[in-house]
Amino acid sequence: MPRKNAFYAQSGGVTAVINASACGVIETARQNRKQIGKVYAGRNGIIGALREELIDTNKESAAAIRKLLTTPAGAFGSCRHKLQSLDKNRAEYERLIEVFQAHDIGYFFYNGGGDSADTCLKVSQLSKTLGYPLQAIHVPKTIDNDLPLTDNCPGFGSVAKYVAISTREAAMDVASMCETSTKVFILEVMGRHAGWIAGAAGLAAEKTGDAPHIILFPEIAFDRKKFMTRVQRSVKRHGYCVIVASEGTRYADGRFLSESGLKDAFGHSQLGGLAPALAQMIKDELGHKYHWAVADYLQRSARHIASQTDVNQAYALGKAAVEFALAGDNAVMPCIVRGKGKRYTWSIGKAALDKVANVEKMMPRNYITRDGFGITEAARAYFAPLIAGEAYPIYRQGLPVYVELKNTLVPRKLKRRFTV
Amino acid sequence: MPRKNAFYAQSGGVTAVINASACGVIETARQNRKQIGKVYAGRNGIIGALREELIDTNKESAAAIRKLLTTPAGAFGSCRHKLQSLDKNRAEYERLIEVFQAHDIGYFFYNGGGDSADTCLKVSQLSKTLGYPLQAIHVPKTIDNDLPLTDNCPGFGSVAKYVAISTREAAMDVASMCETSTKVFILEVMGRHAGWIAGAAGLAAEKTGDAPHIILFPEIAFDRKKFMTRVQRSVKRHGYCVIVASEGTRYADGRFLSESGLKDAFGHSQLGGLAPALAQMIKDELGHKYHWAVADYLQRSARHIASQTDVNQAYALGKAAVEFALAGDNAVMPCIVRGKGKRYTWSIGKAALDKVANVEKMMPRNYITRDGFGITEAARAYFAPLIAGEAYPIYRQGLPVYVELKNTLVPRKLKRRFTV
Repeated sequence: MPRKNAFYAQSGGVTAVINASACGVIETARQNRKQIGKVYAGRNGIIGALREELIDTNKESAAAIRKLLTTPAGAFGSCRHKLQSLDKNRAEYERLIEVFQAHDIGYFFYNGGGDSADTCLKVSQLSKTLGYPLQAIHVPKTIDNDLPLTDNCPGFGSVAKYVAISTREAAMDVASMCETSTKVFILEVMGRHAGWIAGAAGLAAEKTGDAPHIILFPEIAFDRKKFMTRVQRSVKRHGYCVIVASEGTRYADGRFLSESGLKDAFGHSQLGGLAPALAQMIKDELGHKYHWAVADYLQRSARHIASQTDVNQAYALGKAAVEFALAGDNAVMPCIVRGKGKRYTWSIGKAALDKVANVEKMMPRNYITRDGFGITEAARAYFAPLIAGEAYPIYRQGLPVYVELKNTLVPRKLKRRFTV
Repeated sequence: MPRKNAFYAQSGGVTAVINASACGVIETARQNRKQIGKVYAGRNGIIGALREELIDTNKESAAAIRKLLTTPAGAFGSCRHKLQSLDKNRAEYERLIEVFQAHDIGYFFYNGGGDSADTCLKVSQLSKTLGYPLQAIHVPKTIDNDLPLTDNCPGFGSVAKYVAISTREAAMDVASMCETSTKVFILEVMGRHAGWIAGAAGLAAEKTGDAPHIILFPEIAFDRKKFMTRVQRSVKRHGYCVIVASEGTRYADGRFLSESGLKDAFGHSQLGGLAPALAQMIKDELGHKYHWAVADYLQRSARHIASQTDVNQAYALGKAAVEFALAGDNAVMPCIVRGKGKRYTWSIGKAALDKVANVEKMMPRNYITRDGFGITEAARAYFAPLIAGEAYPIYRQGLPVYVELKNTLVPRKLKRRFTV
């Protein structure tokens, strides 16, 4: 097999550990220089390929690449750009081939979530559809944890850990003061369609009465009356009520509680502001003093308290992607397979990309308590190992040291510019 | 000197390290059993004294008390209850004496901020005003960092660290995605009157262009036009703009921005929502895609990333308070004195309580850049050592282990009940 270069790109919302996957891809490629020449990273994701803005990762030292293990966000930049179908935008596919050909790229590693799996699948078909030989491997990544066929998704474990810890800590604050002050606290977390992140907050509770007292899932239609009854019950029984609400919480008719009317590039509604809306509702109906927090990007970038399990898995998946490519695979995604034993174990499996793309994995109903406001023991058993271990970064003068790569662009070989 | 019992209470908003001060008080009292009998803690602060709800800290093991060092929030409960003047509510003072006398209390340790210093001062005068012998020592605590005479206040260093880290992490997230997505990110932090917390976020930036690009201080009147110009400049120069805004940001006429009358999608007023108000303002005027976070209680309870310096100082101040009491002091507050040398050093000093009560220490003007949107080198030199060191708690199954005390109430000795 002739030596080929590889293209790697980060896609969609970044996470605390997506760079750990990048580290796995690059380090493994460097260990296989006979087959893989250089790893080029897309500047700002796939649009870096379309614009011929390729970052030469060979310009980075081994030490710098290693530091990706402890650096959050997307070291090469990411984007939300979903390739349309070949029929609808043939020009983009032809451009990809033009750039890949110019830079002798034979491997395509795409690090993203559900939409990216779809893009990766389309790219994997370039050999067939446009006659360009390319192996495309998807490296899973999404804090939403909604990809099918993998036990969990890198990025999720760290958000889960952050959210569970923050819930526990903030709840202790509220409990300290509730006799004379705030009685209701709402933490709004991410998770547009699936309640995995909100559910993970349930780990904060270890015994009856512990916070969170109410979790709101996108999977369970919001019932204002039931909700208010539950808030009041918690305040009466425990003196306070801690609510963790998924941004995707919606009414039975599908309307989000937080609908802002804005939509992103994928046509998803831009959410935000659920917490203040819920707080106002509670104030109006029950009159309790409240506080609310919206963690937003803090939750998915919180590398300072990343899960060691998550970091390990993110790296292993990047590594496996390269190994799959070297073994001749195309249109696959390495995934996490959970061992059957009581003690948590995991290994790397392989999923066909056409089974992954455009499938969303929701919280199973048996992970949510019958009343719809909490998590079951089955859910706890699922979540717990994913947040295990503290993968602390190095600190200097009280602040974590995160690597900033040189990100040197490869000289352009094409005259034609392409506007995305 | 006959042996007397001590009363300890936590007051006002709790912090990540107020329990470290409690640990210092209790451990030091236990080391001086000849002079100090038992330490009784007020259940929910000073109202615990008024209600004769005294927690017997002697029922807690040495190991449990030690764990207070790594436990956030108020282990005995706190409250916001400011004693009025003797003239206005003599009954409360008489009740305090009644309870103190019944339980042979001769030492009063009050752990709080500015309002608490005032309460503590009034209590310290009980000997004079109502003839009850009592030594009252104030243990400083406030995330707002606005007490005079002390270089800094326990609780602040840990919030500062949390905010600086969160700003750095979230900014990396925004930078990764700004080419095609969010261009403006706003983090709302606490600090109603003083901009210390917002200022500390400035530590996240190490070189030109680093986030935060704009800090909004309560000390600087908000000028919409100047602000918008600055946002736009940052987006043009760096591709994005990260703003850290103090909740106390206000217009020249004193109106808080968070009371700006904006309404959300449901027609509800946005209460306490400075970040969404700013975001909307930017969207309307500049059209940028935005995200915002409100850290709220998360920032002051984040024991998982507390500053080691802060924990050490909180403990030392609790210890010093007891030592001052044993030395015969009354109406004083141990405080942090910063060494003069280039290398950061600190020691414990002593401040007269009548000089502390009801004085608020604002950010000095020379800590804020001339344009009003950033911090100066002087500010950085002040802030930096306060966030030094990571005082990690112990973890079990991925979550920090925080102690929950037994909080056994001392049997009542008084027949009379007192309603607060």
